Amino acid sequence: MKRNLCFLLEYDGSRYDGWQRQAGNDNTIQGKVERVLEKMTGTFQEVHASGRTDAGVHARGQVANVHLETEMTKEEAGRYLNQYLPEDIRVIKTAVVPERFHSRLWAREKTYAYWIDMAPKSPVFQRKYIYTLGESLDVEAMRQAAGALRGTHDFGSFCTGKSKKKSTVRTLSSLEIIPYGTLLEIRVTGDGFLHNMVRILTGTLIEVGQGKREAGSVEGLLEEANRREAGFTAPAKGLFLMNVVYDQEIFCHGEEE
Amino acid sequence: MKRNLCFLLEYDGSRYDGWQRQAGNDNTIQGKVERVLEKMTGTFQEVHASGRTDAGVHARGQVANVHLETEMTKEEAGRYLNQYLPEDIRVIKTAVVPERFHSRLWAREKTYAYWIDMAPKSPVFQRKYIYTLGESLDVEAMRQAAGALRGTHDFGSFCTGKSKKKSTVRTLSSLEIIPYGTLLEIRVTGDGFLHNMVRILTGTLIEVGQGKREAGSVEGLLEEANRREAGFTAPAKGLFLMNVVYDQEIFCHGEEE
Repeated sequence: MKRNLCFLLEYDGSRYDGWQRQAGNDNTIQGKVERVLEKMTGTFQEVHASGRTDAGVHARGQVANVHLETEMTKEEAGRYLNQYLPEDIRVIKTAVVPERFHSRLWAREKTYAYWIDMAPKSPVFQRKYIYTLGESLDVEAMRQAAGALRGTHDFGSFCTGKSKKKSTVRTLSSLEIIPYGTLLEIRVTGDGFLHNMVRILTGTLIEVGQGKREAGSVEGLLEEANRREAGFTAPAKGLFLMNVVYDQEIFCHGEEE
Repeated sequence: MKRNLCFLLEYDGSRYDGWQRQAGNDNTIQGKVERVLEKMTGTFQEVHASGRTDAGVHARGQVANVHLETEMTKEEAGRYLNQYLPEDIRVIKTAVVPERFHSRLWAREKTYAYWIDMAPKSPVFQRKYIYTLGESLDVEAMRQAAGALRGTHDFGSFCTGKSKKKSTVRTLSSLEIIPYGTLLEIRVTGDGFLHNMVRILTGTLIEVGQGKREAGSVEGLLEEANRREAGFTAPAKGLFLMNVVYDQEIFCHGEEE
């Protein structure tokens, strides 16, 4: 029986070369998932994710779908994946979705979180998932700059490897800076993200927080649409894909065994 | 100026051979802390912890003190330690304590937490800090057994390497089993713990939860005072020293820079 199966995935991206399969490279998350499914069904099928996370980036709520010919239930397929995937990639939930559903094309919004520590040393149990900046930041200035970034803009300054053909206009419905003691979470929701966009937004906001840029200068950056004008690309280790929103709920609430 | 400095420490015990310094072994937490302090002051001083955690056991709230001859403030000493200690050992807070204060001898109660996952695969970001059992447990039966273990008893069945000379009577003021979805936290507070006591208590409670032992059989175990009668020693990776209580508060509330 051929069905379109959908998986809610979490992964610790620390030791991977990102989501996207690469020829001759066995160290991608997509490659690991596809290989287990090939072992399960005997046939290779491409797995589509909501977006490609870069090397070192983590996910708490990546969504991926695949058309599979199998007699297994979705729960059995999820358990099979969990059994054969490494311990740093896990299926949280499974769903059967309409045949035409596509994790990336149907995604309406995505949320990312970026974690910064203003203290010189990070909590040991989260040390691999936080960018340890070790420097106090002016959170109010960062919030003012964040306000200018919310909404619909040309984010051409906030992406690497921009193609001249494709639009760099995106809409950020939310961009918040949330302090927890010495930790800061930058949480951003948008209808789409350009390559490295969250990490460049974060780097730019950090520079505002350090006083290296004026909070009011960010509007000018948007007008420039020039990567060189924006801030540095914050390290991958602090970035998490948190959630992907579709027109309808894909996964039921509650824990799955 | 000679002072008795006290540190609140957290560490990821995964890669260490436990707290206690060992001759010819550079891989203990006590050894790492003492070496940095020796570098700082030029003199070796023994650091006393509230208790020796075993290889692989973690701490969120270990307390350790040391008599130091230094002109540094306590904050400077804490920052120095954090700068030179590896990223998996961190000073959270510092205090100057009375000259006679001793982290172990003055400790009134300690709290440990043990984390078990009943699901076959654990959340990826906590995978190193949870014992992944992969099997459902009867929490009510475990709670009934826990009830029999609370209070003052001879815990001779729940320790390894028991000395005949020393008392194995201890008082557990609290022993709770707290479910969070498929995760279970066993949280235990007592006036003292024998070697491997929390891990053997945990192993015994797991066996009750699996139906391998009757909840009511635990009282008999206490009477036996024989290690062979109790359950297995649960793995170190799920165990955390959470908190040490003294007659007076040692550390001020709030974050320290």
